[in-house]
Amino acid sequence: MINRLCIIGVGLIGGSLARALRAKNACKTVIGCGRSESHLQRAIDLGVIDEYTTDVVEAVKGADMIVLSVPLRAMQSLFEKIDSVIDDGVVITDVGSAKSSVELAARKGLKQSLSQFVPGHPIAGTEKSGVDASFADLFKDRKIILTPLEENSQADIQRVTSMWEETGANVQCMSVTHHDEVLAATSHLPHVLAFGLVDTLSQMSDSDEIFQYAAGGFRDFTRIASSDPVMWRDICVENSDAIIKIMDMYIKDLEALKQLIVSADLDSIEKLFARAKAIRDAYTQST
Amino acid sequence: MINRLCIIGVGLIGGSLARALRAKNACKTVIGCGRSESHLQRAIDLGVIDEYTTDVVEAVKGADMIVLSVPLRAMQSLFEKIDSVIDDGVVITDVGSAKSSVELAARKGLKQSLSQFVPGHPIAGTEKSGVDASFADLFKDRKIILTPLEENSQADIQRVTSMWEETGANVQCMSVTHHDEVLAATSHLPHVLAFGLVDTLSQMSDSDEIFQYAAGGFRDFTRIASSDPVMWRDICVENSDAIIKIMDMYIKDLEALKQLIVSADLDSIEKLFARAKAIRDAYTQST
Repeated sequence: MINRLCIIGVGLIGGSLARALRAKNACKTVIGCGRSESHLQRAIDLGVIDEYTTDVVEAVKGADMIVLSVPLRAMQSLFEKIDSVIDDGVVITDVGSAKSSVELAARKGLKQSLSQFVPGHPIAGTEKSGVDASFADLFKDRKIILTPLEENSQADIQRVTSMWEETGANVQCMSVTHHDEVLAATSHLPHVLAFGLVDTLSQMSDSDEIFQYAAGGFRDFTRIASSDPVMWRDICVENSDAIIKIMDMYIKDLEALKQLIVSADLDSIEKLFARAKAIRDAYTQST
Repeated sequence: MINRLCIIGVGLIGGSLARALRAKNACKTVIGCGRSESHLQRAIDLGVIDEYTTDVVEAVKGADMIVLSVPLRAMQSLFEKIDSVIDDGVVITDVGSAKSSVELAARKGLKQSLSQFVPGHPIAGTEKSGVDASFADLFKDRKIILTPLEENSQADIQRVTSMWEETGANVQCMSVTHHDEVLAATSHLPHVLAFGLVDTLSQMSDSDEIFQYAAGGFRDFTRIASSDPVMWRDICVENSDAIIKIMDMYIKDLEALKQLIVSADLDSIEKLFARAKAIRDAYTQST
């Protein structure tokens, strides 16, 4: 049971975590913190949090669990602000989508309380953002990846694990590097490709008309291009090594596929598509 | 009212058209034609068609409306087979996704009955294929693009238009070249990108694990990679000019976006993502 949960950044993820834990009576009080009073008031009106403050130092006072749910490039200054006011026994975690970046920020910003920070990343979300988009079941049957620091105690890792398990999620540990490579491939690259596709089409001379003739496949394919631009800008820059590596691989493969089309190599195109379909179908059946 | 509708290729599109027209009592009899007796029997069992034959010449006998719903590269031989047995007053249409290709096939294959062929393309579909995936509402509120030949009579164009309007679709006419460019951008390119992404990831050393950590965004983004490989192979080869052109544009833009990430150009990345999000959000609201 969490006594006082402090969520810094009450948006889709932070808000959904609060909703899930409240629904399970797994925390007594939730305090929200952010920059916008109107957003925080909205979170109160929706019953997602009990109290709010825009002052980070104020927010963490008395909390036994602190969750940072802000864009990656906002992490370090948060760590610096809260470091000296974190009591022993408090656990800090985050939900950032690139973990090397967060670990580096923590090592820079958390001098006294580094060992109390257990990095985490829920593999869940929608293209929507903000507390209005949050819902209690967001993490149900989803994976949560923790990338613990060598300084973490098993007890603190267990407290973060238990919190996420209350939401119905499955918690797993992984190395930071492996996390960042896997997520670059399955999440960061698709987002870059979707933002990029919409942008490319928007620059065509007849772009207004083009979007009129887009059907359901296009709608699904580009749904993630409605995601938050600042969050995704930060992910691109903060996981750039892994993202650039997978972009290079993908562009090279796309050039090769283009050559198959140029040379009308029916057999090779069909084999590639059939292979991709088999994998995609198998993936669907397993999820 | 169609007296005898002949559907050659009773899959997702052909089957859904039959279901929609039967639901509106807009045709008396539906005869299905294809290569697989078991698939055609299944279409009978599902109540999608009334009769079937695997003999194309037999199938078109007595029909007043013939719909070709087969992969693009199967069109020309069909045209050749049916050309001499088409009576006056019969209208032929198709549902092919690339219209220059179909027009060329028709001009090669239809010597006597060319003027009776009105090319068409429903902008509707799912990633599934086969008659089991067909449903009567597939075309409701969707667009149907016709690319009439200069040889077509207004009366024949109107008969194809009326047929599609019975399904709840909106029918529009467009030039062949424009159709092929628009569809290359909004449909063919996304399919190529999705097939390509699944294939790229499947070749990574830890691919099994990678797909385990894919979340909802990935699922939506790659849904169209479950589409029929032969149909999409044909589209790539039969609309290769437009597809190669848009692939070149996209790869160039993707390289430029990669450079923004390499140089950590936060402002430009955020602007690009925000622009794409605004367009994608506007598109969603309009559909």
